[in-house]
Amino acid sequence: MSDGIRVVVIGAGMSGLAAAAALCRAGARVRVLEARGRVGGRALTRWLPDGTQLDLGAQWIGPTQDRMYALVAEHGLVTFASAAFGASTLLWGGARRPDPPAPVARVLGVLDEYAAAVDPAAPWEAHEAARWDATTLGCWLRATAGDTDTADYLGRLLAGGLLATGADEVSLLHLLFYLRGAGGTGPLLGMAGGAQQDRIVGGPPALAERMAAGLPPGTLRLGAAVHTIAQDAHGVTVCTGSGRVEGDAVVVALAPALAGRIRYDPPLPPLRDGLTQRMPMGSAWKVHAVYPEPFWRADGRSGVSTSSSGPLTETVDNSTPTSPRGVLTGFSYAGDAAALREMSPARRRECVREAFAAVVGPRAADPIALVEYDWSADEWTRGCFGGVLTPGAWRTYGPRLRTPVGRVHWAGTETATRWAGYLEGAVRAGERAAAEVLAS
Amino acid sequence: MSDGIRVVVIGAGMSGLAAAAALCRAGARVRVLEARGRVGGRALTRWLPDGTQLDLGAQWIGPTQDRMYALVAEHGLVTFASAAFGASTLLWGGARRPDPPAPVARVLGVLDEYAAAVDPAAPWEAHEAARWDATTLGCWLRATAGDTDTADYLGRLLAGGLLATGADEVSLLHLLFYLRGAGGTGPLLGMAGGAQQDRIVGGPPALAERMAAGLPPGTLRLGAAVHTIAQDAHGVTVCTGSGRVEGDAVVVALAPALAGRIRYDPPLPPLRDGLTQRMPMGSAWKVHAVYPEPFWRADGRSGVSTSSSGPLTETVDNSTPTSPRGVLTGFSYAGDAAALREMSPARRRECVREAFAAVVGPRAADPIALVEYDWSADEWTRGCFGGVLTPGAWRTYGPRLRTPVGRVHWAGTETATRWAGYLEGAVRAGERAAAEVLAS
Repeated sequence: MSDGIRVVVIGAGMSGLAAAAALCRAGARVRVLEARGRVGGRALTRWLPDGTQLDLGAQWIGPTQDRMYALVAEHGLVTFASAAFGASTLLWGGARRPDPPAPVARVLGVLDEYAAAVDPAAPWEAHEAARWDATTLGCWLRATAGDTDTADYLGRLLAGGLLATGADEVSLLHLLFYLRGAGGTGPLLGMAGGAQQDRIVGGPPALAERMAAGLPPGTLRLGAAVHTIAQDAHGVTVCTGSGRVEGDAVVVALAPALAGRIRYDPPLPPLRDGLTQRMPMGSAWKVHAVYPEPFWRADGRSGVSTSSSGPLTETVDNSTPTSPRGVLTGFSYAGDAAALREMSPARRRECVREAFAAVVGPRAADPIALVEYDWSADEWTRGCFGGVLTPGAWRTYGPRLRTPVGRVHWAGTETATRWAGYLEGAVRAGERAAAEVLAS
Repeated sequence: MSDGIRVVVIGAGMSGLAAAAALCRAGARVRVLEARGRVGGRALTRWLPDGTQLDLGAQWIGPTQDRMYALVAEHGLVTFASAAFGASTLLWGGARRPDPPAPVARVLGVLDEYAAAVDPAAPWEAHEAARWDATTLGCWLRATAGDTDTADYLGRLLAGGLLATGADEVSLLHLLFYLRGAGGTGPLLGMAGGAQQDRIVGGPPALAERMAAGLPPGTLRLGAAVHTIAQDAHGVTVCTGSGRVEGDAVVVALAPALAGRIRYDPPLPPLRDGLTQRMPMGSAWKVHAVYPEPFWRADGRSGVSTSSSGPLTETVDNSTPTSPRGVLTGFSYAGDAAALREMSPARRRECVREAFAAVVGPRAADPIALVEYDWSADEWTRGCFGGVLTPGAWRTYGPRLRTPVGRVHWAGTETATRWAGYLEGAVRAGERAAAEVLAS
């Protein structure tokens, strides 16, 4: 073991932990530096006094996310099915509507067809890449959906629900990359059978904590924000406010926007630095309303909704089988999320309560608790779900997303070719970066 | 004087120096911290052994840039007219063409009309702001220009030539903001009578050096890269690798992309941090070819050109009246610039020589010297001409461009409402930030 290469992993989210575990298994000597006082990155679970589990960040796993299911089992954790009893709700211009307009399914079909032509490891090589990268999703939807309302709804569902951004802030190519890596719109948008099928008892942080506990003693250092990564022919030196760690290689398991805030010596090459300037974090507002019970089920409603307007683009029943409480969770994205952020807390809560009531009725306006967490305000995340390349950036800067820079390797869910943006992508990216280091 | 407020200015480009000068004049006690070993920021002049002046970065001033002309005079410098003798060249698909197609003038007219409806201090308030921010310039040009060639040419001229970015990487609203702040397409695109009318003997760095020399002794500290700005009710503490400076307020005179790489305590609010994630630096490649004389003038050609294709979007005669040498300067932008960056130096030089030859004939293929400088590789600039908000970002994040965060004030040419992106904008923004601090 002591002959193993020395690797510094930056970030103890799922990606960094997966990288560290893989490196340790291969005999490397690993140090994990985490800026926060906890592991888990964009996954954070809070418990109400009555034991109700609230997943404030990443929370779902689903079919084909094989590495996550394997890790959950390996670490002795169990999953439960996401709640979805009854009919889902579609709010169209504020009123319930039984089904989305016909163009919705047609447009989703076109997207799936296009996505099949995209290699998620090299989206810039697609035959139509130039055109798709030059077109914002919003621009394409307005030209394709047939009417403005449908285009707006699909923009909310796809740019918002999948990427936590606005349809006019992202290229069609980026969405196609994302769709392809997950197997299409069906798996991505679905609850049972899709990416939102299961949750973890204890939440994803329970897994992160067990993964951290499985590392050799002394591997993990919390509260260690990295400010500089220096490399030369002999190795790397990673500097934090309280010291430096030397090694043979580094795995940066951070979103590109945050990786770009570290100082590199020598400086990053122009196109890699340019990438970090062009992959802002998505912007979501996730809010949990807790009720004595999931009362909507008695009305035959699932609590799952999407909406063509208003502050919340979608809601889910986020109750757990181990608690009698009902939990509705709402998601707001991009400009809508920014508008909520700008409100007074009282006004925002009122606005959110009204939005929940529109989905499951007036009882929703009176929750026991309303719990928010703003990842955009979190210094070590700065937005969620993840980084999204800006329009036109894939073709020029995309090839630098995973390409190592000397001894510096890049992990983080953004660099995954399967399930980028998800817990699964984080794990796969970490394990890929570990393999890359070991092979180098 | 010793009773004056203490202000820390970060960055000794034109904006930071202008802020420092204004603050000192008002009796403030100022410290200027500059990461580099020189002042001048994105302005840098190199001298050939024979004395020929090559402005590698910012270089021009023109009518209505009153603060720049005043500063030049105040510091005992003089200007000279940019060289433009003879006819300019339009390369269309690689061949010379006497005039641009008719739609070009029409589209520029529409842009000027739209721009007149934009308040450069609040572009997000324009009546059509939502639509213009949701449309990339490329998307709009393809719908408006009538044919693809014209749309592509205008994209190169406007997104490239004015913003050093790609037409598909920027919103129509950002271009309109930029046009309005400068008075329209005429002043922006013109040489004599426009933004490229005059140059400074000695280059803009000569002015920066004199401005720095005019500050009280001990004000400026070079080689002082700031890594943290902390503030509380009592004041600010600015930390560099070699120490800390305390003050009552800070002026951050950096482009937002670089300002976002500093650590703030407390962290920046979400929307301000989000702005720094969404304003990448433009990407230009500027290359100077030096010849024994400006031979093109004898052929009646000005050396000024624009091209609808190829690596160089435009060239100018950058010779100076004090040297017999002829200097042609070429500009490449966005994806074209990235492609040049990716070539071997030998291949790139060949490529550039061919492009110059296409403008002024085969003699251009044999320069005495070819001088490049890549601002995207410069750790303390990371791209030029300046920061450009990504599509869809103005409406949500734009209002945070100038809004102070407690004791932290924002300068830099990106924050100007007149001539943003130019030396003039840098000076105006610095003086505005200084006034803001003094009023607070």
